Amino acid sequence: MAESRTKGERTRQAILQVAVDLTAEGGLTGLSFGRLAEKMEMSKSGLAAHFESKEALQLATIEAALLRYVEAVIRPAIVEPRGLPRLWGLCRQWLAYARGGVFEGGCFFTAASAELASRPGPARDLILGLVAGWNRDLEKAIALAQELGHLKREVEARQLAFEIHALMAGANNAQLMYGEDEDWFARAMTAIRARLLVELAPGAPAVSGLNTHREGEEPCASPSGVGRS
Amino acid sequence: MAESRTKGERTRQAILQVAVDLTAEGGLTGLSFGRLAEKMEMSKSGLAAHFESKEALQLATIEAALLRYVEAVIRPAIVEPRGLPRLWGLCRQWLAYARGGVFEGGCFFTAASAELASRPGPARDLILGLVAGWNRDLEKAIALAQELGHLKREVEARQLAFEIHALMAGANNAQLMYGEDEDWFARAMTAIRARLLVELAPGAPAVSGLNTHREGEEPCASPSGVGRS
Repeated sequence: MAESRTKGERTRQAILQVAVDLTAEGGLTGLSFGRLAEKMEMSKSGLAAHFESKEALQLATIEAALLRYVEAVIRPAIVEPRGLPRLWGLCRQWLAYARGGVFEGGCFFTAASAELASRPGPARDLILGLVAGWNRDLEKAIALAQELGHLKREVEARQLAFEIHALMAGANNAQLMYGEDEDWFARAMTAIRARLLVELAPGAPAVSGLNTHREGEEPCASPSGVGRS
Repeated sequence: MAESRTKGERTRQAILQVAVDLTAEGGLTGLSFGRLAEKMEMSKSGLAAHFESKEALQLATIEAALLRYVEAVIRPAIVEPRGLPRLWGLCRQWLAYARGGVFEGGCFFTAASAELASRPGPARDLILGLVAGWNRDLEKAIALAQELGHLKREVEARQLAFEIHALMAGANNAQLMYGEDEDWFARAMTAIRARLLVELAPGAPAVSGLNTHREGEEPCASPSGVGRS
């Protein structure tokens, strides 16, 4: 009994990984039992044993995508020291994640929120809640950096979080639209770095790639060296 | 003959205005002869006399949306003096346009480019070309402001255009996702204004709302007065 339950769970997880990748083609709305069954070489009734409705499948797919995201962005950033290093870690990890093929088609959540913004329902609510959560994560990391004396007090954390998030999503979308003829993620990193440098407080620690760099290393991944001199 | 041709063209334009508004519900992909015929109280065959295929309808709908956009953003901005005033005009007009109900659901092109990014075809090509054109408009306005000595020479125009565009699209998307509990367009304007102020050259003219303001007028639409002191 316990063994077959584990096997069932493994099958469910395997289905969800395929479902996550399938959304790169037709979005969450285009995710169908038929298409998924074909990809999994399973029957539709076999699939239906795991997910009782298309809506349940969509919600489980979003949760599976969230696990990938947490592994790629949150887990590596959260081990950085609190304050500025962690904030910069979140920014760097997010850009590396969106560029790096964790999902086909860039950030799963950026795409899904654009797709579902005007389609009310539980999938939209879940996605918007997760994106709002990411904004709160950024805002909290900024506020913590302020409390620790790493960023100026007069910065409004929500405004700065909005700007950083917009630059990230802008790079993600430009990459989807125009591909790799430009390094959009480097552009976003250049912009975010310049934005943070303006707001550093006297107590800011040295953070590699932000306000200091190891020998032989570029100060940031900028192709252009845009200055805000 | 000439009269009936004019009438036919008027009918076609009326259909396209409804088609543009319909995309706010189901996107360009969801635009169907059936749904459009219902809204227009016409027969599907009546519609088919105006558009030979769904693809032709999509392309004509995009062009109709473009006309609204040009009226709302480009035409009022282009009368501003060249250089910084025109660049600031483009930014302000775009934010007013995205906020102001020119289209239901914010900027038509931001939504359509997210929708079509991974759906190859002529509609995608047209949309991406138009969005790329908007980026070029911004970049050219920045370059012209540099030539005229309004913005610093060392700014990379393409980088600055990327940042401004990302902030605009970020406000548009936040508004769609989270609605009016925050003034996202004011946040974008605050960010763009601060970004431009950093790059002003000594020869920059006074531009209302950017680096000067009339008596009794707020220096910008910022709810927060975020400083980059």
